[in-house]
Amino acid sequence: MTFNVNSSLSYVVNGPTTFIFNIQALNTNNQRVLEEKLEIEPQMNFEQYTSHDGNSRFIRLKVQQPTNFTLTYSAVVEMNYTIIDESNSAKTVPVVELDSYIASFLYPSRYCQSDQLMKFSFKEFGNYGSVYETVVAITDWIHANIEYTLGSTNSQTSAINTITERVGVCRDFAHLGMALCRALSIPARYFTGYAYQLNPQDFHACMEVYIDGNWIIFDSTKLAPLNGLVKISNGRDAADSAVASIFGNAIGTNVYVNCQVTGEYFEPFNYSNNQKGISFQ
Amino acid sequence: MTFNVNSSLSYVVNGPTTFIFNIQALNTNNQRVLEEKLEIEPQMNFEQYTSHDGNSRFIRLKVQQPTNFTLTYSAVVEMNYTIIDESNSAKTVPVVELDSYIASFLYPSRYCQSDQLMKFSFKEFGNYGSVYETVVAITDWIHANIEYTLGSTNSQTSAINTITERVGVCRDFAHLGMALCRALSIPARYFTGYAYQLNPQDFHACMEVYIDGNWIIFDSTKLAPLNGLVKISNGRDAADSAVASIFGNAIGTNVYVNCQVTGEYFEPFNYSNNQKGISFQ
Amino acid sequence: MTFNVNSSLSYVVNGPTTFIFNIQALNTNNQRVLEEKLEIEPQMNFEQYTSHDGNSRFIRLKVQQPTNFTLTYSAVVEMNYTIIDESNSAKTVPVVELDSYIASFLYPSRYCQSDQLMKFSFKEFGNYGSVYETVVAITDWIHANIEYTLGSTNSQTSAINTITERVGVCRDFAHLGMALCRALSIPARYFTGYAYQLNPQDFHACMEVYIDGNWIIFDSTKLAPLNGLVKISNGRDAADSAVASIFGNAIGTNVYVNCQVTGEYFEPFNYSNNQKGISFQ
Amino acid sequence: MTFNVNSSLSYVVNGPTTFIFNIQALNTNNQRVLEEKLEIEPQMNFEQYTSHDGNSRFIRLKVQQPTNFTLTYSAVVEMNYTIIDESNSAKTVPVVELDSYIASFLYPSRYCQSDQLMKFSFKEFGNYGSVYETVVAITDWIHANIEYTLGSTNSQTSAINTITERVGVCRDFAHLGMALCRALSIPARYFTGYAYQLNPQDFHACMEVYIDGNWIIFDSTKLAPLNGLVKISNGRDAADSAVASIFGNAIGTNVYVNCQVTGEYFEPFNYSNNQKGISFQ
Repeated sequence: MTFNVNSSLSYVVNGPTTFIFNIQALNTNNQRVLEEKLEIEPQMNFEQYTSHDGNSRFIRLKVQQPTNFTLTYSAVVEMNYTIIDESNSAKTVPVVELDSYIASFLYPSRYCQSDQLMKFSFKEFGNYGSVYETVVAITDWIHANIEYTLGSTNSQTSAINTITERVGVCRDFAHLGMALCRALSIPARYFTGYAYQLNPQDFHACMEVYIDGNWIIFDSTKLAPLNGLVKISNGRDAADSAVASIFGNAIGTNVYVNCQVTGEYFEPFNYSNNQKGISFQ
Repeated sequence: MTFNVNSSLSYVVNGPTTFIFNIQALNTNNQRVLEEKLEIEPQMNFEQYTSHDGNSRFIRLKVQQPTNFTLTYSAVVEMNYTIIDESNSAKTVPVVELDSYIASFLYPSRYCQSDQLMKFSFKEFGNYGSVYETVVAITDWIHANIEYTLGSTNSQTSAINTITERVGVCRDFAHLGMALCRALSIPARYFTGYAYQLNPQDFHACMEVYIDGNWIIFDSTKLAPLNGLVKISNGRDAADSAVASIFGNAIGTNVYVNCQVTGEYFEPFNYSNNQKGISFQ
Repeated sequence: MTFNVNSSLSYVVNGPTTFIFNIQALNTNNQRVLEEKLEIEPQMNFEQYTSHDGNSRFIRLKVQQPTNFTLTYSAVVEMNYTIIDESNSAKTVPVVELDSYIASFLYPSRYCQSDQLMKFSFKEFGNYGSVYETVVAITDWIHANIEYTLGSTNSQTSAINTITERVGVCRDFAHLGMALCRALSIPARYFTGYAYQLNPQDFHACMEVYIDGNWIIFDSTKLAPLNGLVKISNGRDAADSAVASIFGNAIGTNVYVNCQVTGEYFEPFNYSNNQKGISFQ
Repeated sequence: MTFNVNSSLSYVVNGPTTFIFNIQALNTNNQRVLEEKLEIEPQMNFEQYTSHDGNSRFIRLKVQQPTNFTLTYSAVVEMNYTIIDESNSAKTVPVVELDSYIASFLYPSRYCQSDQLMKFSFKEFGNYGSVYETVVAITDWIHANIEYTLGSTNSQTSAINTITERVGVCRDFAHLGMALCRALSIPARYFTGYAYQLNPQDFHACMEVYIDGNWIIFDSTKLAPLNGLVKISNGRDAADSAVASIFGNAIGTNVYVNCQVTGEYFEPFNYSNNQKGISFQ
């Protein structure tokens, strides 16, 4: 399946400012960037680099003079994610055998205080037959119990706020899911990406959970089909995967995001007791 | 029903210290103190007074010299609480008709951040047929979902911590219940007292909820029969009803509490779909 | 000194809603309401009553049908507050001699977690010569260290957030000041009122501190002269003194507030090492 | 300079349990492990591996049967850390030029909520001449304002608690320092190690700050000389660097830690306006 993704970010720069953007589609086993284009209008020099762990691609831009500019990105991305039968997924994650990179997603992080949610997560989700069923249960619980309300939270909102106040956006849904998984010693990492059929179109966030050697995608917002996602970044939580980090004096004025499937017929895929998992790895 | 209550508190005083104790049984319509005795060993002068709202009786003691002392209280208390049929209790509390004293128990307080629990409380408990059934549901939910563990919390623990971490003691169970009631515009106040058949014996805490003109007692710990309680104090939360407030330099060394029924046969009373409520007012 | 105060609140009511307003000038020893007028346009019946503790005057209004309305209040208020020489104010508050009503303002409350700020408050403010100097130091410290930014906080913001994030509005400045006072066993209560020369005009909040038998006003925002305030309400914190409490389905559309001195020459009064205190009591 | 480090951890195992220990001295440019010995009594098989980022060495042990055991580690470590003249250190960190691994230490983490401390950190520490002086000021401020009290905090305590409650242990001092650095866009990472002349002897924690291409050590507890440290681990915060992670059912019964310098004369080194920094890298 091939997707056309586009995004465009506009800023007013009032003084010397440096920007680090994280909006480009990743290249992974299952996701190949066939073509992409990056433009800054007016034209300026920028650098591109990939994070040391390969989980993010960054665009680094320095602006010295006050100005307005728009960064535009477009790419054609071919997705060949794997659909995995989870009907025999393990009962638990063999924590001690985990590679230390994967184990790092067991720890609490800024927005995922799993250490404070252990009793809750064990009580609610500790008795499912397999890791896959456990995470499906967590996802369904969040979907049923947290109200999705745009603008209800801010950049300081964490899983503890969300479990208490029961409202949030995709970022908050993802953080709570990750915290509940980690509380059960299930590795979970943050996922940002483009999302086909997300309405309104915007950058999207959800989570990937490590099950039997694969990172499986779960989205408790259920706002977009899982096979319509294009990955931008992975991280411990939103602290690692900001769309734009700004050092200096600038204000964002506009964001445009779009994700379309090219041509072919698209059949939305979601988990509905089908014991299937999608891996973007 | 008549109860013998006793308590004894011992301290080492290292420097000038003033104590305010709140351990005496209240006199209310339903609770009459037939006799009581207060002793400090070694003997010292102290004052007694009742709070402006009549919700607490205080013992004020000033100690100038370093010393050890023990305060001993004993009382015989006759309980004639009312058992009220709640099978026709109101669907909601007519907030606007509430006397302003009662309305003050609708507000969030230090340990009961009801303003942060509105969505949760409405979703879980917003659809019961009556106020009484709503509070029974809240009480049962806390009993089923919060783990009672002595020593698990401290004097800073609040309802937000308890709903998140799912563990606490009687004080925390009471605070969470009050926060969930207030979030639904149901007045709830803190209750401290002696508790017959509480094991181990200690000062106990639970809540009173205002239903159809009566303050009805609810105890989500379910550790003692509701008709075995003797009231010491009411307050917005534990900030109002400390057993001992110490200003100076002293350390508590021992606490002894006991509550016994005198002679007669005692039939434990609890709410079990009997649509009954006990009022201590 | 005589003030003309006015306020007007407009709402769109979408369903049955009851309102409790707290916008009327209090009558106290130092503050006499000479005349006042309350109008609701379109005309509707409402009730007025005073809180059991005399600290607030309430207007109770029930609206059954969807409608728009505007509540308008105006009053002429004579202020004869006392200016007290604090140059000999006590070194500490004799906590144990406090009347229990006053003592209730020593306790932590929803927005004033004094129990968590004890070490900080003792270290920063524990060594001044008198209670008055201590509170002046607290007020100056807040003014110097907290950034006043409209819209920076919300109804859940508490003293702990403000001491951490260092930004807030008048309500937050008051809460932090009260928490720091209570942490030092100094009674402090919330004050809401009208404020002459406050720019832009709005309802204002600050605190009153109990010193040597008087409630002395302190305002760490320093946005209005202390002798230009007209008291609406006292409470433990903002949970007790909301301008409007709304039960039902309505949205505020407009707020207008004005406070003017009538005729005479007005000399702004503030604390500037003059060892003076203003009491509204 | 050569150190002998020893540690020994004892456990009672009640059921199948897996342990991951992180107590071995790291091998870095400046720290060479000359000899080391690892023993488990009674003898059991274990694995050793190094984290993917090279920041920790782990011992993995699976215990199937209930038993008691003691893990003993001893090593001889040669330290050749660099002492760097910081008198010309940069005014700011060129964030955009940072390698993405180093940039990851700019982000808030579980125990270091730098995003909530920006205004405070900028106001208090935003105006020093160089990054080095800024971090010295942060370290001195923490030393002067936070009370070091063993047992005062727990595994959930974070920088926000510490800045508010003003008390903690080495771990909390380190977290607060890191949060304040990151709030100023200065990369800071957690450091655990052995500490010569730390009294009582225990595992120690402090922080390393990235200045002009070097990771410089800072310890706001000032409980041990900076040139008496032997590094065990680096991480984002304590979530990454636990001495022991236990999955199963076991209880720690004893911890012994010791760090001695071998033979030669030891001259304690600390930062005292000497514009010097120590790097362990």
